[in-house]
Amino acid sequence: MRYFSGNLNEKHELILDEQELRHCLKVLRQKEGDKITVINGKGELWTAAITGQTRQNGRLEILDYKFEQDKTKSTLHLAIAPTKNADRIEWLLEKATELGLKKLSILYTNRTERKRIKINRLNMIAMSAIKQSRQVELPCIEEIEFDKLIGQANTGLKYIATCEWEYDKDDLQALDFKQSAMILVGPEGDFTSEELSKAIQSGYRPLSLGENRLRTETAGLLLAANYYMKNTLS
Amino acid sequence: MRYFSGNLNEKHELILDEQELRHCLKVLRQKEGDKITVINGKGELWTAAITGQTRQNGRLEILDYKFEQDKTKSTLHLAIAPTKNADRIEWLLEKATELGLKKLSILYTNRTERKRIKINRLNMIAMSAIKQSRQVELPCIEEIEFDKLIGQANTGLKYIATCEWEYDKDDLQALDFKQSAMILVGPEGDFTSEELSKAIQSGYRPLSLGENRLRTETAGLLLAANYYMKNTLS
Repeated sequence: MRYFSGNLNEKHELILDEQELRHCLKVLRQKEGDKITVINGKGELWTAAITGQTRQNGRLEILDYKFEQDKTKSTLHLAIAPTKNADRIEWLLEKATELGLKKLSILYTNRTERKRIKINRLNMIAMSAIKQSRQVELPCIEEIEFDKLIGQANTGLKYIATCEWEYDKDDLQALDFKQSAMILVGPEGDFTSEELSKAIQSGYRPLSLGENRLRTETAGLLLAANYYMKNTLS
Repeated sequence: MRYFSGNLNEKHELILDEQELRHCLKVLRQKEGDKITVINGKGELWTAAITGQTRQNGRLEILDYKFEQDKTKSTLHLAIAPTKNADRIEWLLEKATELGLKKLSILYTNRTERKRIKINRLNMIAMSAIKQSRQVELPCIEEIEFDKLIGQANTGLKYIATCEWEYDKDDLQALDFKQSAMILVGPEGDFTSEELSKAIQSGYRPLSLGENRLRTETAGLLLAANYYMKNTLS
């Protein structure tokens, strides 16, 4: 099990916050002298020891440090409309994070019914998923309006997944994740035709994900899973 | 929206059961004269009309019939240990079904904590997923003990996914879904080394899914998503 801490004090000790400390001492019953692994979600990784002080103030003694460079050659940025039922988008985030997603934009579109999402809760889920899957980097999570997002300059491939586009094998084949890619996925009811036009004008390629009509979160998962496999095999 | 019915009466009318009827008339507010699509989960597909009798006894008038041949060239059979939290396996089933899974075996292994699962509930989830994703064939769902499953003769490729096997790109690359494949996925805590040996003796190839430590249901999803993409692109 890995623990999260972003804090080093002036004595060069790592500090676990209350929640991580409880998890460490109460749930996983770590004892004085045990060695644990601590990450900060930005690639830094410490081996640290629980000392006599840990129970009082969360301080850990650092035994070893390394910086793990992220090995993926390309990145996936999903911009996805939040589902009516928040569970579905949370589940997607957990799975996509396990599979190495680097950025999630919660995308507010014309037909998006849900107009708010708990970003703090999403960050907690992502944190738990990187600890569980033994990664070192937290994905970046943001909320953004459709018009604002497509107005931004983005390097790499840009796609908009939609059921309104006729399936073309070559389009889907071209999405080989050898380059970093940003992919928009719409809400229940899809993007409006106006949004689709705007995206195309902004350089996004329309993409059909095949003949099965996939739910929003399933489309996101399909992309994340294929991204992971391509990166693992590259 | 599609409806499910396995029943044709002697007058060659389709009969919706109580639950489907309620969904049709109360939730989706279909009216007399509306045309609806009915599937039986085995490739048969009817266009049928709601008549004056439908509200009383669920009878529909058949207007058109076709048999949709499943277009996938190979099939995926996942045999997966049930997760401690049943939600996770239900979610996996829903997503994998949307992505065209053909068979799910709920696999009871040595380290499986959950010893029962509600198969009826899984069948309902699968039904809803094929309706939603516009497919025609229900996946087959069963419960089975590990020893019994690996004792069965199976054609096609056979894999056992495990964290205990060193990752080898060539192994994973070989899993191209051009042939039908059956893949075993273990519980939290993985297969025992005895189970792994038995599977290898029975002709299963061990397979590591890369460096991220994936949860049981995430491993299943990764496989289903890659199966769908390969089938869609083939």
